Amino acid sequence: MNANPESESFSDFPDAAPAPGRTRRSLEGRLLRRLLSDLGDPPVEFVLWSGERIAPDGAAPGIKIRIADRITLFRVLRDPQVQFPEAYSAGKLEIEGDLVELIALIYRGMAKDEGRDSFGSRLARWFRSTRRNTLAGSRRNIHHHYDIGNEFYAMWLGETMAYTCAYYPTLAATLEQAQIAKMDHVCRKLQLQPGDSVVEAGCGWGSLALHMASRYGARVRAFNISHEQIAFARERARQQQLQDRVEFIQDDYRNISGRYDVFASVGMLEHVGHENYAQLGRVIRRSLCSAGRGLIHSIGRNHPGLLHPWITRRIFPGAYAPSLGEMMQIFEPSGLSVLDVENIRLHYALTLRHWLDRYRAAEDRVRRMFDETFVRMWRLYLAGSIAGFETGTLQLFQVVFTTRENNHIPLTRQHLYST
Amino acid sequence: MNANPESESFSDFPDAAPAPGRTRRSLEGRLLRRLLSDLGDPPVEFVLWSGERIAPDGAAPGIKIRIADRITLFRVLRDPQVQFPEAYSAGKLEIEGDLVELIALIYRGMAKDEGRDSFGSRLARWFRSTRRNTLAGSRRNIHHHYDIGNEFYAMWLGETMAYTCAYYPTLAATLEQAQIAKMDHVCRKLQLQPGDSVVEAGCGWGSLALHMASRYGARVRAFNISHEQIAFARERARQQQLQDRVEFIQDDYRNISGRYDVFASVGMLEHVGHENYAQLGRVIRRSLCSAGRGLIHSIGRNHPGLLHPWITRRIFPGAYAPSLGEMMQIFEPSGLSVLDVENIRLHYALTLRHWLDRYRAAEDRVRRMFDETFVRMWRLYLAGSIAGFETGTLQLFQVVFTTRENNHIPLTRQHLYST
Repeated sequence: MNANPESESFSDFPDAAPAPGRTRRSLEGRLLRRLLSDLGDPPVEFVLWSGERIAPDGAAPGIKIRIADRITLFRVLRDPQVQFPEAYSAGKLEIEGDLVELIALIYRGMAKDEGRDSFGSRLARWFRSTRRNTLAGSRRNIHHHYDIGNEFYAMWLGETMAYTCAYYPTLAATLEQAQIAKMDHVCRKLQLQPGDSVVEAGCGWGSLALHMASRYGARVRAFNISHEQIAFARERARQQQLQDRVEFIQDDYRNISGRYDVFASVGMLEHVGHENYAQLGRVIRRSLCSAGRGLIHSIGRNHPGLLHPWITRRIFPGAYAPSLGEMMQIFEPSGLSVLDVENIRLHYALTLRHWLDRYRAAEDRVRRMFDETFVRMWRLYLAGSIAGFETGTLQLFQVVFTTRENNHIPLTRQHLYST
Repeated sequence: MNANPESESFSDFPDAAPAPGRTRRSLEGRLLRRLLSDLGDPPVEFVLWSGERIAPDGAAPGIKIRIADRITLFRVLRDPQVQFPEAYSAGKLEIEGDLVELIALIYRGMAKDEGRDSFGSRLARWFRSTRRNTLAGSRRNIHHHYDIGNEFYAMWLGETMAYTCAYYPTLAATLEQAQIAKMDHVCRKLQLQPGDSVVEAGCGWGSLALHMASRYGARVRAFNISHEQIAFARERARQQQLQDRVEFIQDDYRNISGRYDVFASVGMLEHVGHENYAQLGRVIRRSLCSAGRGLIHSIGRNHPGLLHPWITRRIFPGAYAPSLGEMMQIFEPSGLSVLDVENIRLHYALTLRHWLDRYRAAEDRVRRMFDETFVRMWRLYLAGSIAGFETGTLQLFQVVFTTRENNHIPLTRQHLYST
């Protein structure tokens, strides 16, 4: 899949001039050489508008980055994390070679600085997140991403319209099989039984709620603040004649009321903001009956840190991927008991590769719906996400929990794997 | 098992006087009534030296606590957490009824105050733990518990001499079967292969190290600072002719050197002290090769808090059971990636029930080795631990982790469950 998805060549990018020797290197060239050195000298070559080529000494670069003009280069050098993707989206920067591999090389080069949690970075996390995901802020943030059109998402998410990490029992599974396997994996982890009442926080287009009702006989109340998604999910419930078993509610998770056997949240935590984790824990605790159990499925990280700044700027405003330690701030203050954590990050890389394949096949249609910049921006987001999960920059945690007093828990996890 | 292990009746405990009415209640009686009320009015009756009986109104107490004299009562009222076990050990307090059930009732009654992590309690944790587990402090602490005699432990730990939570594939498994199943569960989680090099931190009497070598073909270096345990483990290695594959080293985990495919630590973290977690993480990181993986198995808690003060005073000086969030302080600063967490607390309750059965059968021999106070103290420790795991006061976490860059990880956990 996508062995070499990026081999475009624009005629305004010169490629004729010979690679200059070290003595003739320009200021721009020296700065780019320094950038490559900081990244551990990956096998990448920059090709400038002038024809000048900059690559690590002695490397045989498999990937070329063509930069259209000087202003683009200086923007990228000033703030590479944001301006590199901006320049790519605007078509001022072209990649020859595998886009995923390039981003993976960059992530691996940056990895040596990870794990340091300075006071400054903690302050930055607090500053950038505080007040973001208020009730009104969350509505704005969610609208930005999820309300851009169900038709757009339908082009590449597949039939299930599940926009979260799938679960591949084997590498040969299709995207649809893996999304259904994910839903079954979640339901088994929750020991879902006929007649169970479920509350779902952040239900997307409704696939999990409908699956729980149709395959497991559960009654589900599913919350989401995206108007477009709720409208779509309600229509699906009508088509499947599940309106009496699944209620889709356009409201914030903080307004969940009632008591349930099961709490489920797949892919919402990224939008909660870690300043709200203790409150989420209280919502869960008051929603669960005494033998209640729950599952939270979320993108995470090995250690606390902000998401990529371009992602929170262009793709997911207000989003945050917690470390497992930060996730515990949901459960520990409320006395909930964590039973099981599974990290399935490689499954998200597989899922995203399937999405990117379908997305690229649909790019002409996307271009007609939006514009070229949008097409390139989303291509970069999907490719960058693959690289994030493949390099361990991002993790995917499924956390199963229950009330402290619940002893009706399975002795082993064997039941998840008997088919 | 142990349906009613405590039905002793000492002749110096009076039982003749009728239960006095509310109007005749003594000062002692009113204080005990208040204590019961604070615990949520469990079905427990106090019987005083005077014959006075105190129980919750309207309850039919199944458990009687006989208190021998006034000085014992006032000690218990002043500091129940420490003085109740002290009085029990000294024979000044007798239990009629199930000891485990009584302690479980107390834990459940106290549970309403859990989850609050005040500044004071954080300060207390810091104060009580700091400087405890220095290299010299750890040696003293470990000597206190583990060097009291291999013969003593052999009476009730069973053939494996594994002094950690076993793993029961089914409830019918024997203690020995469950201990071997635990070792196999750990080895599978570590994907242990023939020829793998393993470093084990805190190896007890050596059962896991020997199992890894004999059943999986691994080469193991196993560290422990208990002289008695190391001597026992070396003798076992000789008997099993595994000296060339398993090296037992009497040294602190902080002095581990070399690089290994696997890091394993089963039941040592409780003695590390959370002030040393980041250092433990650095030891692990520098010990693992690039595709290295590891497992830490430890008693834990749902939220940060000290172990029971009597336990750290009499049984395990310097011990601490972390919350899962606290455990993450091992992995997150070193950029290690958590793959899997399993909470098997009910398995520890089962293990402890098997140990307590054997311990009680051996009490006469224990009494000859030590004295009556020791016999009662350890009986209470084992019974109290059962109650701790059955009420969710204590958890048992197995955490599997790997280096950030390792993508040679199993796609699913199916391999743990195929037999």
